[in-house]
Amino acid sequence: MLILNIGEGKGKTTASVGQIIRSLGHGFKVCLIQLFKDNYFYGEQNILLRLENLDFFSFVKKHPCYLGNVNSEKLVNLCDSAMKKLMELTSINSKRYDLIVLDEFNVALRDKLINENEFVALIEKLSRKSNVIVTGRGSSKILLDMADLVTEMKEVKHPYKNGVQAQRGIEY
Amino acid sequence: MLILNIGEGKGKTTASVGQIIRSLGHGFKVCLIQLFKDNYFYGEQNILLRLENLDFFSFVKKHPCYLGNVNSEKLVNLCDSAMKKLMELTSINSKRYDLIVLDEFNVALRDKLINENEFVALIEKLSRKSNVIVTGRGSSKILLDMADLVTEMKEVKHPYKNGVQAQRGIEY
Repeated sequence: MLILNIGEGKGKTTASVGQIIRSLGHGFKVCLIQLFKDNYFYGEQNILLRLENLDFFSFVKKHPCYLGNVNSEKLVNLCDSAMKKLMELTSINSKRYDLIVLDEFNVALRDKLINENEFVALIEKLSRKSNVIVTGRGSSKILLDMADLVTEMKEVKHPYKNGVQAQRGIEY
Repeated sequence: MLILNIGEGKGKTTASVGQIIRSLGHGFKVCLIQLFKDNYFYGEQNILLRLENLDFFSFVKKHPCYLGNVNSEKLVNLCDSAMKKLMELTSINSKRYDLIVLDEFNVALRDKLINENEFVALIEKLSRKSNVIVTGRGSSKILLDMADLVTEMKEVKHPYKNGVQAQRGIEY
């Protein structure tokens, strides 16, 4: 099954963390591959890394918008290591996961940092044997068509708009 | 701060579980008060109950729609114990929590199983000192006005509509 958490609102990654907790609680094996986060995942990491049956891989530790000086070629190369990891998961010798979470891959797709056709082909393979969650604001038309379950997190009201700063434990 | 996770889509509770994990990872103290769930929270419970700094209270273990034979007076009484617990949290002797999650309380409000004015008064007190997340499909106008952060989980595509059954580890 292919699941997409999309939209401009909060909760795309946090809902997938909730799904990871739910799956681990059932004794399932989970793989989380994450792009563009480091300190912003500090809280979750602290707990997740202690739990059994979760493999966690993080690539390109900062969001592209904070990487002003990095040219897109370098970024594509960095994202390529995430794609290689994904490719590994499709090999017949790979460990089998019940749930695979690909956090922020929609952003990499949107910004053309990963090749859409390659990504779609990998997702097609993986989602036959595992539940796959892809998160990130936008999503490509092909993925939306392929997906079984799509939820849009819609911002109705946000304190940023009233000048409130991001809060530790809430926003990161 | 008052946060609402509303809407017909998936991810309201799972995103708040993600928030709990994030908060606990920062060493914060968290209280989860839940209505209408039991087996449907089995996976999450298995993990959450092992974590430090989380107090978890569950009331009315089944969703009202599965409690056909229970009259609404009995349901109101059952929900009243959840309200008493909430009241306890506002007392000056209560343990101080950084995050309080009130799962499915929007549903209890919508179905008039808890008194809106009493609930709003409690939330007003609690959200001055703690971050409070209230989840559930609908939300009252007063709560929406009070809230700092509101996210609507919107169902874009759902496999139920194609006759797919709820899956362990995904839906519950």
